[in-house]
This record gives sequence, C-alpha cells and structure tokens, in this order.
Amino acid sequence: MGERDKALRERAAKVIPGGLWGHMNVDGFSPDYPQFFERAEGCTLWDVDGNRYIDFMCSWGPVVLGHKHPAVEAAVDRQRALGDAMNGPAPALVDLAELLVETIPFADWALFQKNGSDATTACVTIARAGTGRRKILAARGSYHGAVPWCSPSMLGVTAEDRAHLILFDYNDIESLEAAVKSAEGDLAAIILTAFKHDYAADQAMIDPAFLARARQLCDDWDAALICDDVRAGFRIDLRGSWAPLGIQPDLSAFSKAIANGYSLAAVVGSDKFRAPASYGKVFVTGSFWYGAISMAASVATIETLRDDRVIEHTAAMGQRLRDGLAGLAGKHGLGLRQTGPTQMPMVLFDDDPKFARGTAFCNAALKAGAYFHPRHNMFLSGAHTPALVDRALEAAEVGMAAATQVGAREMAAS
Amino acid sequence: MGERDKALRERAAKVIPGGLWGHMNVDGFSPDYPQFFERAEGCTLWDVDGNRYIDFMCSWGPVVLGHKHPAVEAAVDRQRALGDAMNGPAPALVDLAELLVETIPFADWALFQKNGSDATTACVTIARAGTGRRKILAARGSYHGAVPWCSPSMLGVTAEDRAHLILFDYNDIESLEAAVKSAEGDLAAIILTAFKHDYAADQAMIDPAFLARARQLCDDWDAALICDDVRAGFRIDLRGSWAPLGIQPDLSAFSKAIANGYSLAAVVGSDKFRAPASYGKVFVTGSFWYGAISMAASVATIETLRDDRVIEHTAAMGQRLRDGLAGLAGKHGLGLRQTGPTQMPMVLFDDDPKFARGTAFCNAALKAGAYFHPRHNMFLSGAHTPALVDRALEAAEVGMAAATQVGAREMAAS
Repeated sequence: MGERDKALRERAAKVIPGGLWGHMNVDGFSPDYPQFFERAEGCTLWDVDGNRYIDFMCSWGPVVLGHKHPAVEAAVDRQRALGDAMNGPAPALVDLAELLVETIPFADWALFQKNGSDATTACVTIARAGTGRRKILAARGSYHGAVPWCSPSMLGVTAEDRAHLILFDYNDIESLEAAVKSAEGDLAAIILTAFKHDYAADQAMIDPAFLARARQLCDDWDAALICDDVRAGFRIDLRGSWAPLGIQPDLSAFSKAIANGYSLAAVVGSDKFRAPASYGKVFVTGSFWYGAISMAASVATIETLRDDRVIEHTAAMGQRLRDGLAGLAGKHGLGLRQTGPTQMPMVLFDDDPKFARGTAFCNAALKAGAYFHPRHNMFLSGAHTPALVDRALEAAEVGMAAATQVGAREMAAS
Repeated sequence: MGERDKALRERAAKVIPGGLWGHMNVDGFSPDYPQFFERAEGCTLWDVDGNRYIDFMCSWGPVVLGHKHPAVEAAVDRQRALGDAMNGPAPALVDLAELLVETIPFADWALFQKNGSDATTACVTIARAGTGRRKILAARGSYHGAVPWCSPSMLGVTAEDRAHLILFDYNDIESLEAAVKSAEGDLAAIILTAFKHDYAADQAMIDPAFLARARQLCDDWDAALICDDVRAGFRIDLRGSWAPLGIQPDLSAFSKAIANGYSLAAVVGSDKFRAPASYGKVFVTGSFWYGAISMAASVATIETLRDDRVIEHTAAMGQRLRDGLAGLAGKHGLGLRQTGPTQMPMVLFDDDPKFARGTAFCNAALKAGAYFHPRHNMFLSGAHTPALVDRALEAAEVGMAAATQVGAREMAAS
C-alpha cells in the first residue's frame, strides 16, 4: 500500500464507518489494491501514490468511452456554460428522451433519475401501478440494487420489504413457471438482468428459450417484463441488450454507462405502461433528476457509441484480452473460465473456491500495471487499444506466474 | 407560454409520460410557468424563450450560493481536470467527510450518496440494523422522499412497504407518545424533518419541547433520532438545523444544498450508529456514489457558506423579502401568512383554500420578472442582493394587484 493511500485510509477510518461503504471498499478485494485515486485519462488510472494502471473496471461500468472523452466533455462544457440545476429541465432532456426512443425499438417513452436502484425501483412501482398487482419475480442471486426490496443484504431490511418478492433461478424455465404459479394471479412483473452477471460466479448469456418463456408468461398474465439493463445497457447492443434476440421487455432500467460516468439513470417503457408512469400517477422524483449536465453528457455518449461503433470495438478488445489470457493460462497450465460478453469479462480460475489464485493473479498483475478484478465482472471501454490490451497482457503474464505459486492450502483458506 | 417552451412541451409529451415526471412538472404549478430553462447565473434564470426571472426557488433547494458560484466552479474545474468516476474515491472524499465531522457537532462519521431519498432510506436501514428493531415513526404529511416506504403516493406501493411505519403529528407530543406506545417495544427510529415544511401548508419551526421529548423517547427506548435535514440542511445552521436548540439527532440525512446543485447526499451519524453503518454491515452503495466532482463541489460549498456567512445573508435577504411582501399585502388589503425561516419562505394568502389568489399573485409576478411558488416553500441564495430583492418586490406588487382581482368564485373553484 502506497504511503499516501495509507495516510488517506487512516484518515478515512476515523470519519467513514469501516473506511468506505459499499462496492468500492477494497477490503472485499485485496489489501494490495489502492483505495484512493488521483487521476484518470482514457483507460488509464493513477492512484494517489502516482502508480499507473491500464484499467479493466471502468469505475465498475460507467466509463464506456474512456475517461474524459472529448465529445462528452465538450457537451458538458456547453451545458455547464448555460446551467445545470434550474427550476425545470433544459432542452437536453427532450433531446435525450427522443434519442432513447429512436434508439431502443420497444421504447415509447423515457424518464430519468440518478441511480440504477432508482430505475429498477421505478420499474417495479410502475409495473405494480399498471397491473394493480403486487408480486415481483426476480432471479436468485441477481443484483438489482442496494435498496430494501432487493438489497443483497437483509441487515436493516424487514421481511415485509420482501413480502411480494418471489425468487426463481435464472435461465431455469421450470423454476420461473413455479414462481409464476406461486404468485397466484398477483403477478405484477418479472425482472431479469440483461444476462446473468452475478457476483463471484460464471456469467451466462440469457437463454433465448428462457427469455421467450418469460415474455410469454408476462403476456399470459398481463404482467410487465422488466429488463434490468443497468450494468449491461449501452455495452451489448445500443438498442437494448435483448434486441439481438428479438424479444422485448415492457420496461427497462438503464444507468452506469448511459452518460460515460456522469450520474444518470433512465427508465424506458412501452406505451402499455405509459399511463401508470405518467405525471399524476406514480410519484417518482429527486432533487437532481432534472440536472442538464448529465443529460447533455448522455446524448453525447450515446451518439458517440453509435457513430464510432464503440460496442464493436470494446467487444473486439475484450476478445483480444480473452484470447491472450486463455493463451497465458494454457502456457502456465492453469484452468481459466472466461464467461459472458467479451466486453464485460468475468475471469475465474478453476478449482479456486476462495479466489486465492484469482487474487494472486490480480495482485501481481496490478503491480505490473494492469487493474483486474478477481471476483466481479470487468469492463472494456472505447479507450482500450490493441497496444494497451497487449501491454495489460504482459502484466497478466506476471499475474499468471504468481497464480501458479498459490498452494492448495492457501486456496482453501483465503 | 413561450413559443419555444410550447414546442419543447409538445415534443416532451410524446416521449416522456405526462410531459415530465415529479415535482418540476408545472402542471401542478400554473400553466403560465415556463417548463424548460436555458440558462442560470447567480439568482437569475432565463427560460427557453429568453424571459429573465429573479429566482426564489433555487432549483427547489440545491442552489444555495447562487448558480455558478466561482469558488464551487473552480473546485469542480480542478477535480474535473483530474478525474470523477474512478475505481475508488478521490482524496476529496476524506476532505469532505472530515469537514462534515468538524462542522456538525454530533457527527462522528459520514457516508455519501446521490439523492435525499438515498440518505433518508440509509438512515432508516442503519437504525434498524443498529437497534435490531423495525418500527419507524414519521410525521403525517412530512416528505422524506419518493421511494416506497415514504412516498406521498401509494400508487404502485404495497401495504407491506409501510408495514412498520407509524405516523404521528408533527410538534404534537401526545401523538408522538401514542405512536411510541403503539410500536410496542419495536421502535427503531423517529424521523423528523428539521422543521415542518409540508407541501401547501404553513410552515412551523420545530417546538423545542417536542424535539426534547422525541430525544428523550429515543434515549428511553435506545432508538435512533433521525433528522431529515435534506431540505433545510446548510440553510438554517451549518452545524445542522437542530444545533441552535442544543438537541442532537443520532443520524442526519443531508442533500439538496450540500454541493450547490451538484448531485450529492450524505448520512452523518454519531458513534452509537457507526457499527451498523460500517462496511460489511448494512449494504448501501451506488454506481455514482464515489464520484469526486460533487464531493469537491461540496467542500467548496460548505467552506464558502462558512467563510462568507451566507446563511446570515440569506436570512437577511429573506427578511427583506418578507417585510416587503407584508407591506405590499397590507397596502392591498390582503391577508398573508409568511411562515418558517425567512431564508426558506412559505407565502400563503388568507382565505385561499384552492390557491387561486396565490396563483394569480405568482403568475402576475412571473410576468413582471420574479419567480415565486404559490404552494411550496421557496429558497433564497447567496446571490440574492438587496437590489435584486427590491426589484422582485416591484414584481410582487404587480402580483398583489392581480391577487386583489381574484373573486370569491374563482377562489372556491380553482
């Protein structure tokens, strides 16, 4: 741990409970990882001790074009020169809503928020208001946010907060059908992440037959199919992550990559759910939900993603990383599972239940200048180039060598 | 309605349900009010048709120093040149947490979010986790956010979302005591807005005897006293809105004015609730909760509020407005109730149950260049000067003349 990072952690420990809340606390990561960062450019990060990393977390998803993308920053400059938090929205609101409706085939309307949780919660509320029913079906282990109805932790959450939540297994039609049955005609919505991207587990694309069955069940029961596209949105397909499958949700939640790091979330929906989402119906609002800067940033982000074909680029760069890592693992005799879309890689070592090997790999790669994560899916950005991926693979080779040194005892104990 | 505003509303009606969600929809306001804004400087707003207003809403609270305050914008420029959404926080996080702990006497720690609702919900979750109990006592009509456990609308909300919410009447000790009794030993927290600032009602400062009783009841039952300082925080007293009364909460939620318009919220707490708020305990997080720009903006905002004694200034400007409006109302023979702190004025006309008189006043004043609200509390900022308040009072005089023209029939019907 660098000296400046250590000093900041010591100060933080006094004034922030446990040093840092939530997913960015590196205690859940590895003690060698820097907690505090000084600077970011493209896909390069500098920690507070001046160490430089080629980054594969992209702020855990939001940074899709690379930090400080000129088109986004120019849009921010223009809007900032006018105004941000005014007594109503700026024209950028309408530009953005129109752009989403044009881009996402099933979308007839949009509304905006600040957090992914705001968007998933609004989807659930709109679905309940529109159907007059209560049960929400969600997949066991899927992450839909850190609010009482869906938080991965029950600490401080009451049983009643989950009274109408029914769980099923992702990609398991029978389990979904059983959940629908247990809703006993009170089905408001089925919510599904765009693909299976649970923490510390192999990723899986959504099974088209499973998604088709979910769609059919929602149609049969006149319930809402909700796509939680918070993490995957604007990374798999600009039209929404299920567009390539030809199956459309009724409501989708977006956030993370929507504005290249500026805080914004969106619910988009079909006309079927326009009425309950309307002003005077469900009440969803927030002090900063009308801010113009993040909306201007989002328009520029989505236009850049479209015009520069950034998703194809990130998929190709992710494939280059995947191929390189597979080659290195083979060379070092290590079994590696690389799952999910290449632009959102999950890299897990075989026979590594406590992630000791993954942690050793990441720690050594970190010191060699590449920032990987041992348990969470990672992210590529438009700023990753073949040369940068290749340089990261050099760091990964150091990591692989370290991973081979992890003994059976450490693997079981860590 | 201006031509450009009208055109934007027509476009918005197609792609945003009801034209606009939430509190900034002017349907709940007056049809003559502009919906869309172009530009903001200090306490002056320009709508998209080029009309200029001296503003008394301040984006419904966030803008406390005035738009584009140079100290805040300089801090934003500096942080933006470094980075915002990185893989962990920037040093600005620690600076801000330390500044809050130094500034707010009862605060031993802080954590940060994006919405006021994030902060009030986290307070409730931390209180439940810390006490191991479930009941939350809140005042009837108080606004704590637009999420299921506290939303002012039940549409899309289930009864179970409120299963452990018990209501009492603000400033009514007997009612509070009855609520505590009905919690039957399962009391987790009492949550109170800093003062009574309910929608479309006279405001009231918190009764010190009532607050003392709430404090005592929480101590007796080992429950958390939560101050919802989202709206009032950094406007009444930099040390927290109850500091002048010498009574301290265990947890406070802040947002709105904390970063002069940049989206940020905070929970601050005493050491009694440090453990449940700690990493590994309650799980609260968000994709953008670690963003450095809003934290840098917040440090600059709080330092400016402190060094320039902005709260005293806004209170004085609010008093100047209040005195002026009282004089104008007397001159025009209108009964006016001006309640709450002068820097957060609520202005209601007597015998005006449907707000016809208030609406006529606001509409006429709007056309004369002052942006007031007929039903919601308003806000002063550091950018309001005596000359600007006096100019707004000239517009208010036009408004008063219009208010006198409202007949009994309109007052009952509108």
